[in-house]
Amino acid sequence: MSKKVLIAGIGLIGGSLALAIKKTHPSYQVLAFDSNQESLKQAQDLQMIDGFIGKNELASELASFDYIILALPVEKSIDLLEFISQFDLKPGLIITDVSSTKALIVKRAEDLFAGRDVSFVGGHPMAGSHKSGVLAANLSLFENAYYVLSKSQVSKDADLDKIKSLLAGSGATFIELSASEHDQVTSQLSHFPHVLAAMLVRQSKNYAKDHPATEFLAAGGFRDMTRIASSDAQMWTDILMTNKEYVAERINDFAGLLGDLKDSILAGDQLALYEFFDGAREQRKSMQIHNGAIPNFYDLYVNVPDKTGVIHEILGYLTDAGISIINIRIIENREEIMGGLKLSFRSSKDLDKAQTIIEEKTGYKVYET
Amino acid sequence: MSKKVLIAGIGLIGGSLALAIKKTHPSYQVLAFDSNQESLKQAQDLQMIDGFIGKNELASELASFDYIILALPVEKSIDLLEFISQFDLKPGLIITDVSSTKALIVKRAEDLFAGRDVSFVGGHPMAGSHKSGVLAANLSLFENAYYVLSKSQVSKDADLDKIKSLLAGSGATFIELSASEHDQVTSQLSHFPHVLAAMLVRQSKNYAKDHPATEFLAAGGFRDMTRIASSDAQMWTDILMTNKEYVAERINDFAGLLGDLKDSILAGDQLALYEFFDGAREQRKSMQIHNGAIPNFYDLYVNVPDKTGVIHEILGYLTDAGISIINIRIIENREEIMGGLKLSFRSSKDLDKAQTIIEEKTGYKVYET
Repeated sequence: MSKKVLIAGIGLIGGSLALAIKKTHPSYQVLAFDSNQESLKQAQDLQMIDGFIGKNELASELASFDYIILALPVEKSIDLLEFISQFDLKPGLIITDVSSTKALIVKRAEDLFAGRDVSFVGGHPMAGSHKSGVLAANLSLFENAYYVLSKSQVSKDADLDKIKSLLAGSGATFIELSASEHDQVTSQLSHFPHVLAAMLVRQSKNYAKDHPATEFLAAGGFRDMTRIASSDAQMWTDILMTNKEYVAERINDFAGLLGDLKDSILAGDQLALYEFFDGAREQRKSMQIHNGAIPNFYDLYVNVPDKTGVIHEILGYLTDAGISIINIRIIENREEIMGGLKLSFRSSKDLDKAQTIIEEKTGYKVYET
Repeated sequence: MSKKVLIAGIGLIGGSLALAIKKTHPSYQVLAFDSNQESLKQAQDLQMIDGFIGKNELASELASFDYIILALPVEKSIDLLEFISQFDLKPGLIITDVSSTKALIVKRAEDLFAGRDVSFVGGHPMAGSHKSGVLAANLSLFENAYYVLSKSQVSKDADLDKIKSLLAGSGATFIELSASEHDQVTSQLSHFPHVLAAMLVRQSKNYAKDHPATEFLAAGGFRDMTRIASSDAQMWTDILMTNKEYVAERINDFAGLLGDLKDSILAGDQLALYEFFDGAREQRKSMQIHNGAIPNFYDLYVNVPDKTGVIHEILGYLTDAGISIINIRIIENREEIMGGLKLSFRSSKDLDKAQTIIEEKTGYKVYET
């Protein structure tokens, strides 16, 4: 049976979700709402959506939708949720969002829709791109990425299944977490780390005033640690503003841990320091750290002379054999953990085939991690 | 005039320095001392050194050397320095080391050699490799890497020039920093960041006890930030043990900064948070972050479909045009700052040529950062 879906905010995320819906539900009518007319036109030109509705029509059209997806930053999503709640809506309407924090919007939805036949399920597809805007939208954006769904007091279990079915075309791996659990876990793994990275840059830059070599002696480890300090300032401000307590709690906890370690350092407690570093090394190994797109991949290292022609040659053999790589990298033999040419494959079968072919054809030493 | 050089510790660093000395001073006699007999034999087989001396001969041979390079971890270097100081040494002998902290060893050398015609200059070649051992030694290890020299109360300015000349074959960029300045700058840019990375892993792992999704929801940003937490625990214990005060001071300072930010978060001070992130982004851009090997390189991004054949095709055009790449990477279009195929070149000329060729031949969009 055909359904009508409204996507509010037709950028990278909204556009990619529109594509995902159309993939498995070609008969569904997907309409977009966005303050940016250009984005709406582009989405329509790309046949991502069936049409769009203007600001003045929104109120009168709202009651026709079976699903509304708020694909905006969290504070704008909350504003729109408040607007929507003022109108008659279709019985059984399911609203979901895609923003980075969940507790605040879920709480607001519970207040707004209590006692009405309208559902709100929080959503957070955990993938992003350096690109933004509807032109960057693509079907593979969420492939194999985790997509958190958070039920609310105004949702039924069946609603989560309906959303999974609606968005099945995304290829995402759905997991259910309460809104507060989501915000806690992401405070630890993402929000607080962004604070750490930005703070390390700021502290270093400040230190450079009295210690000018700080300006130019940073190397690979520092680069890795501070990479996320180059992220969008507005987005991270919004995230902190909507997840204050949990991030503040992680900060507090971390400052306490730092204080303990400082004591061990000043006491010269060699064993405690060794266990600190060794434990961290072991613990990191035990964590599943995905890269959004590809939770499972298989790496091969080839000891090659650092020549463009050699890489070209190797890729030629792989292309001829129909083996796809999902990544390739030359690992500099300094400040890195592994060395040589690194090739990543989607399956262990591809890896095995590649290993055999490269060894046969080139004689270069090939090894797995 | 020929000189006699002793390298104590013939692993990756010692071996690479032996090669560097032989490159520009083929007439110099380079001997090695190491507790590992296998390393000594390998170094000799590879003609890296002219010979080696055993533990029992060391004392009687010491007076014959013009240079002694301590290529051991800092605490072992200090032990050996104390041993050496008990014997008659050649007037004008210059001793240097390669360890990660400088103040402690410089101070010890000053105590040991005050009033004697022996010089000690602290040294720290700021490059490393995932590999270790003499077999991994190579002439390019220090190429374009910073090599810090720290004078002491038992060195003359001319001694630093002599070391630069001795090690000119390394291709390193020598810079002079006082021992304490070195230890302060590296506490900020390297030692404390290692603490942060390890602590973030430990905190997360601990959080996972009550919040199990912490075990598997970490993504690219977390991976980058914690990569150096996989480093060698013993090495980092030694570094902290020999740079206690400065690292403790960075910890203190950081905890204070975290406290301030926590206040801004809890106060909901949006402007302060925006300036925090935006300032960090700007500041990171303004810092020179080198990667040891290649302080200057030029990146090009090509928007390509993620296909092995396409990369093969592009590398073919570059190979045909005689353009070398120094790195290549497929940037996943999620959780990364840049996207597409990333190609790094040694010169802007190579980059320009590559850009023209790729655009002409393929029509793919090519852009610089």
